[in-house]
Amino acid sequence: MPLPDPVLDAAAVERIIYNGLPMSSLAAFTVIDVARGSTTVRLPFASWMLRPGGTVAGPVMMLAADTAMYAVILAHIGDQVMALTTNLTINFLNRPQPAAVIAEGRILKLGRRLATVEVLIRSEGDDTLVAHATGSYALPG
Amino acid sequence: MPLPDPVLDAAAVERIIYNGLPMSSLAAFTVIDVARGSTTVRLPFASWMLRPGGTVAGPVMMLAADTAMYAVILAHIGDQVMALTTNLTINFLNRPQPAAVIAEGRILKLGRRLATVEVLIRSEGDDTLVAHATGSYALPG
Amino acid sequence: MPLPDPVLDAAAVERIIYNGLPMSSLAAFTVIDVARGSTTVRLPFASWMLRPGGTVAGPVMMLAADTAMYAVILAHIGDQVMALTTNLTINFLNRPQPAAVIAEGRILKLGRRLATVEVLIRSEGDDTLVAHATGSYALPG
Amino acid sequence: MPLPDPVLDAAAVERIIYNGLPMSSLAAFTVIDVARGSTTVRLPFASWMLRPGGTVAGPVMMLAADTAMYAVILAHIGDQVMALTTNLTINFLNRPQPAAVIAEGRILKLGRRLATVEVLIRSEGDDTLVAHATGSYALPG
Repeated sequence: MPLPDPVLDAAAVERIIYNGLPMSSLAAFTVIDVARGSTTVRLPFASWMLRPGGTVAGPVMMLAADTAMYAVILAHIGDQVMALTTNLTINFLNRPQPAAVIAEGRILKLGRRLATVEVLIRSEGDDTLVAHATGSYALPG
Repeated sequence: MPLPDPVLDAAAVERIIYNGLPMSSLAAFTVIDVARGSTTVRLPFASWMLRPGGTVAGPVMMLAADTAMYAVILAHIGDQVMALTTNLTINFLNRPQPAAVIAEGRILKLGRRLATVEVLIRSEGDDTLVAHATGSYALPG
Repeated sequence: MPLPDPVLDAAAVERIIYNGLPMSSLAAFTVIDVARGSTTVRLPFASWMLRPGGTVAGPVMMLAADTAMYAVILAHIGDQVMALTTNLTINFLNRPQPAAVIAEGRILKLGRRLATVEVLIRSEGDDTLVAHATGSYALPG
Repeated sequence: MPLPDPVLDAAAVERIIYNGLPMSSLAAFTVIDVARGSTTVRLPFASWMLRPGGTVAGPVMMLAADTAMYAVILAHIGDQVMALTTNLTINFLNRPQPAAVIAEGRILKLGRRLATVEVLIRSEGDDTLVAHATGSYALPG
């Protein structure tokens, strides 16, 4: 599959998501990379993210996964905020560090009506995969 | 499968989750029902939960799903906070109202090492299913 | 969600699937029930279905899940064989008996472009849930 | 995560699966590669695999996914046939050719009790990803 070229840069994707989703300010994420077929987001660590065992809670990893998916879709289809997640599957692999969460969304398929994305999630500064997600988006229009 | 009886009540489950997960205070959820094989949680609506289109954002629904899963597991295995989500799949079905989220976790299988749970998610005051999730937990011990 | 009424009966659904999918003859399934929002299929047991431990192999359960999904979709949208599975998640809960597989597909959402279905899988003559699946179909037209 | 070394070769993995699963002879698959952390299987095309549209049916892709998962697990844990799929999620991305199915299983996490695997599925002779799967196995002992 030829990977599509992005049509928005990191700053534009970040601005669109912050404008549409007030919860962005809670997570304080940044879009740190946009490339052909992929987009990476960073959620800085905050103490409210902890769960028993001193690791980052599952819902924070899901938020990171969903944000990376939405970011990589917007980066490649442009400012169409009505793209909607239709489903998401996440597998938790290793305990995350109490550290920033780095989530890289990769487009597996960008169709006319449906896009499918894979997300690789790591703790900042550690190559270990802590979670892996896949999901689909229904595209507007 | 004979459904197991709960070993904790709603208040006990709520207290355990709030003690272990500081993000509970953000979501301000309550456990509103514990029954044989099922537990229901309620996330009150807050404006930070919105997404474009005036509905509740996907990550909030995932938080509700994960909280209902964790709650129903704890209600049936007791105060064992190291139960860990191993995977979660969520399907988004209908646009949620800008209203409280009601998530009912139902145990599909409670094994010795692994539990599988289904979650039905609705907007408060509306019978329409807005999302459906399934997931597994690795049980401690 | 008001459940839709079926537009085809069990015999019609069965005939359409057999006409389009030669593997149907291998599985020798029958459609045993069509109701509002649900359709049930039966895969008779055959010795090629076994796996180590004397139970029915996972791919047979997946075949049952996919067949029940396709059957319940066709029963409710009519003879539109180009409906395509976009994703499927299956959780294995309990070891199936070496017996016929009964899979009941239930529509969770029947949209214009996308349908989401839940499948409950049991061994014939035993109420225990042996597997649970959810999946989505892209609808033609 | 350091990828584990395989402990069995392709011929050994293939023999174990054929011995335990009579359906292997139906699919006539071969294990064509075992490497560090990955194993690739090939299902030769047969006309019973077709579905409307002239492509390979979904359950065949699921069979390929499950076989690749089981193969990569066995290749890395040895002859422990009681490893059991606990769940599997598959996303269908592009229509497969009426051709052999090539499924590459990659270990995402090999824990003591649970393993998680990703599978990339292609039609033989075409680099396009036709499906992507993830799944977990409960490991014996």
